Amino acid sequence: MSSLTATSKGAATRDAIIERAYESARFTGLEGLSIGTLAQAVGMSKSGVFAHFGSREDLQRAVLESAAIRFGNAVLIPALAEPRGLPRLRAIMRLWFDWVHAQAGSCVLVASVNEYDDRPGALRDMVMQQEQTWHDALRRAAQLAIDEGHLRAGDVDQYAFELYSIALAVNHKSSLFGEAQSRRHGEQAVDRWCAANSA
Amino acid sequence: MSSLTATSKGAATRDAIIERAYESARFTGLEGLSIGTLAQAVGMSKSGVFAHFGSREDLQRAVLESAAIRFGNAVLIPALAEPRGLPRLRAIMRLWFDWVHAQAGSCVLVASVNEYDDRPGALRDMVMQQEQTWHDALRRAAQLAIDEGHLRAGDVDQYAFELYSIALAVNHKSSLFGEAQSRRHGEQAVDRWCAANSA
Repeated sequence: MSSLTATSKGAATRDAIIERAYESARFTGLEGLSIGTLAQAVGMSKSGVFAHFGSREDLQRAVLESAAIRFGNAVLIPALAEPRGLPRLRAIMRLWFDWVHAQAGSCVLVASVNEYDDRPGALRDMVMQQEQTWHDALRRAAQLAIDEGHLRAGDVDQYAFELYSIALAVNHKSSLFGEAQSRRHGEQAVDRWCAANSA
Repeated sequence: MSSLTATSKGAATRDAIIERAYESARFTGLEGLSIGTLAQAVGMSKSGVFAHFGSREDLQRAVLESAAIRFGNAVLIPALAEPRGLPRLRAIMRLWFDWVHAQAGSCVLVASVNEYDDRPGALRDMVMQQEQTWHDALRRAAQLAIDEGHLRAGDVDQYAFELYSIALAVNHKSSLFGEAQSRRHGEQAVDRWCAANSA
């Protein structure tokens, strides 16, 4: 086996472990991840898994990073295909609701805030940075909607907070009260918010 | 010791165990509770704790119930002292933000939704019932504000969803980005929401 093949095989194994860990973290949280259980699930030895991730925290960070990439690919990047202004802002919210649906209400990213907000360390730093990224994406979309003359000028941090609130509530309510009702409330909230803040 | 004294001593011990368990659940979640660790923390034997709670789940239910009573006492009951309509609705939100502050962003009730929304059983049923209670409280306050001529007539379930969203976001953001900023956004969101929906 050439060293290139070995490297790409190694990367594929690493990806498969992350994929499996991501699925299990959706239900147990990142703190529920165990190298032992994961090794069993992917049919490897514990030391085999440790060869790819130096520590449990390295694995947790890789899973969190992978969740963020998925969210970006599912929500933020496709929304860029919409014209700037309200169409793009609305697309972010719609795709975010689709994301909640795809996660069946168990979102690693939302759960990670509950898990790490009171635990200083590398994971909390990552969570904070990710939250800042989503906030900034909404902030930027709101600013563009103001620039395009779609929204009234205002405090874009406030706008981002309010839009984030809606997505959070759709996620929070969907597993308990059903996704259809929760999404309907979320869509209605976005419509009402846009109407209240239109230029 | 009379049987009455024995009973009241038993109740006091039970309350002390719940109090301790509540404090630890704020950081570990209800699923992080362990009878062993708790017994150590209150200076009892494991069987001593089991004498008060037949099972770990009984303890978790008692802690969840206690959290709901605290929330009611801190938020919903004092708000009733305000005149019905917008003053009471605003009081609920203000007291809710105070609650987030008092919990330092680690709220057993919010976390319990993440823990149990995908685990059918007695705890999930309790969580659902509690979420319904908070929703209904907001719904009722919104309906009274309509009846008083303070808010425009509209879908009160939608109103409740939107107000709940704001409280959820204040909780979600406060540990990561600081309480002061998060609360300011929350208060601003309530002001803006009331202005947008005033009669």
